[in-house]
Amino acid sequence: MSLDDDRLARVALSRLAEPGDVRMTGLVSELGALRVYRLLADESGADRLKDDVAARLTAVDPVRELDQAARLGLRFVTPADEEWPAQLADLARAAPLHERGGVPVGLWVKGDLRLDALTTSVAIVGARDSTTYGGSVASMLGGELTRAGFTIVSGAAFGIDFSAHRGALSAGGPTVAVLACGADRVYPESHRGLLGDILATGGAIVSEAPPGAAPQRIRFLARNRLIAALSTGTVVVEAARRSGALNTANWASRLNRVLAGVPGPITSAASEGVHEQMRQERMALVTGAADVLELVSPAGENVTEPRASPDTVRDRLSARQRQVLDAVPVAEGAPADSIARVAGLGLVEVRAALGRLSGAGLVALDDGGWRLTALARA
Amino acid sequence: MSLDDDRLARVALSRLAEPGDVRMTGLVSELGALRVYRLLADESGADRLKDDVAARLTAVDPVRELDQAARLGLRFVTPADEEWPAQLADLARAAPLHERGGVPVGLWVKGDLRLDALTTSVAIVGARDSTTYGGSVASMLGGELTRAGFTIVSGAAFGIDFSAHRGALSAGGPTVAVLACGADRVYPESHRGLLGDILATGGAIVSEAPPGAAPQRIRFLARNRLIAALSTGTVVVEAARRSGALNTANWASRLNRVLAGVPGPITSAASEGVHEQMRQERMALVTGAADVLELVSPAGENVTEPRASPDTVRDRLSARQRQVLDAVPVAEGAPADSIARVAGLGLVEVRAALGRLSGAGLVALDDGGWRLTALARA
Repeated sequence: MSLDDDRLARVALSRLAEPGDVRMTGLVSELGALRVYRLLADESGADRLKDDVAARLTAVDPVRELDQAARLGLRFVTPADEEWPAQLADLARAAPLHERGGVPVGLWVKGDLRLDALTTSVAIVGARDSTTYGGSVASMLGGELTRAGFTIVSGAAFGIDFSAHRGALSAGGPTVAVLACGADRVYPESHRGLLGDILATGGAIVSEAPPGAAPQRIRFLARNRLIAALSTGTVVVEAARRSGALNTANWASRLNRVLAGVPGPITSAASEGVHEQMRQERMALVTGAADVLELVSPAGENVTEPRASPDTVRDRLSARQRQVLDAVPVAEGAPADSIARVAGLGLVEVRAALGRLSGAGLVALDDGGWRLTALARA
Repeated sequence: MSLDDDRLARVALSRLAEPGDVRMTGLVSELGALRVYRLLADESGADRLKDDVAARLTAVDPVRELDQAARLGLRFVTPADEEWPAQLADLARAAPLHERGGVPVGLWVKGDLRLDALTTSVAIVGARDSTTYGGSVASMLGGELTRAGFTIVSGAAFGIDFSAHRGALSAGGPTVAVLACGADRVYPESHRGLLGDILATGGAIVSEAPPGAAPQRIRFLARNRLIAALSTGTVVVEAARRSGALNTANWASRLNRVLAGVPGPITSAASEGVHEQMRQERMALVTGAADVLELVSPAGENVTEPRASPDTVRDRLSARQRQVLDAVPVAEGAPADSIARVAGLGLVEVRAALGRLSGAGLVALDDGGWRLTALARA
């Protein structure tokens, strides 16, 4: 096989190397895919024992690979393509984790969504063993952020991932699932419906692993870095102390992406990992889509308004009336002159104010004197 | 009445001025209680219309006040007393809030606990409308911090205050209630049992307001600053956006005290105020008594150990065994040579490791090859 095509070299290397293997991603970043391919393939001299790597590499027929992938509805996207998501370049500068890291050699993609459209995207990740609370929060965030024009990226796993994708789909938006197995595969099997809906709604299924690759733990670690790298920010909704979601969170930090978490009850083990990260000030606390939007939007956009507190009757009083109201006893009545003394105001003024407050239903006069009504105490 | 006793002057001023009235506390800090008393009392010249303040001041008989208070079981503690809690001096340097502030003229106290013993104390405050979650957290924190040797300070109000005191009492420790009304009064009325138990357990009921004073809103604001000032740190367990607990929190900040909060579900209005403070980085997040102890203890004491995660089977494997385990497919079986390739290890080594892993119940061999067991996936 004569090979002088960068794309074909990348297909072959994608088949040869494990996703995110730092040796491979590092070499390709440094030398280019074509040179790496040739270096590795050249190991197989005719005269000496065939090197295993070279044998495996030269056994791959990248044209046939692309052909088979196309029949499965998959395309192979490389840095040479317009569709290549530019933000993945940040991976070249981030330190590896678990010997995974670097810019992927290429991405196998299924679905209509173009990866270069992922410029405003938020990853929502979290516990597989999520609680009802976590699931409903993930779904709510997925929906609201989608309506706000962001694309939700997640891993199509059980629990939080599932709810986040579902929330996005229910808002009618495309969503992106990054898998640890081949993009042609369905894992977990029970998420066949979810993955089908993601494709039907114009989203995408993405993997660094070649078609047919099985979901192995080591591939989940490599996959997590892509979820973080593809997104402007990562939101963790529930994570126990050892949750894989914290691996994604770690990647978001390494990549200088926004990293946020949703708090929960301190009595819930599913929130322990999130609280721990917040305690260590690694993760911002968000209480809803508005908080997330503020973090992931360019400075000045989507700034959360100082929360409008519900307007109380009290807010509509004059400063003087409030001063008088504050001096009226909570529990039992007091005469106007005692209230005047407490308020530090004149008796005439206080009597006038009490009249107005009484009209507003905030104070009442009984045998014991003026006292607050239930409305004022609310 | 000839008055040259600082204590008696303070009794009279306590009766005259509203708790925390910045004009009074400021004057007393600057001139001393005796001079302020004389200045105010001198306004009543024999020849001119009696000034209201002077009339009221000179109408107070401080000796009789102390006598009556003693009959109610109350003592009056002033900065001249050994029992005076030194940390209240910080109030002289903090900016006022709602025109309340400054060092109290004196404190009316009931109960065995001496205020100068409050050197290791934690305020636990929060919503009156607390949830079951908030109540149980407050009670848990009250108990655990008491057992750790801290005294719980709170306001004896409904909700979080009640639960915090109850938690402290259930741990057998004395606890301190700071009231907005006179320390002789019972407010709320339904907390008669709680206040009785606080006294019976060697605690104290404290107020800046003189005996008989009614609970007025303005006095709650003055009271909150004392709760914060008496304590090494303040922990807010649940607070809605407008909770009075946030006023106490604000005072803790003003006084450079530790300020912490307990997160909760973002779907709970009772946690909104706490989350908002955390978002603005005004309040540290704590998930239990250990976190609080770390914050309020002198540097180096009570440092939280890096949380011991539960030891998993995986933790007991060698690095090599883990590497092999990570390469075993999650969903379906793979032959040993494919696992060796994924793991980047030799076949002999991988076969040996698979044998060990199989013995540990982490992998199993079936028709399809080696795959992870449920134990390994846990």
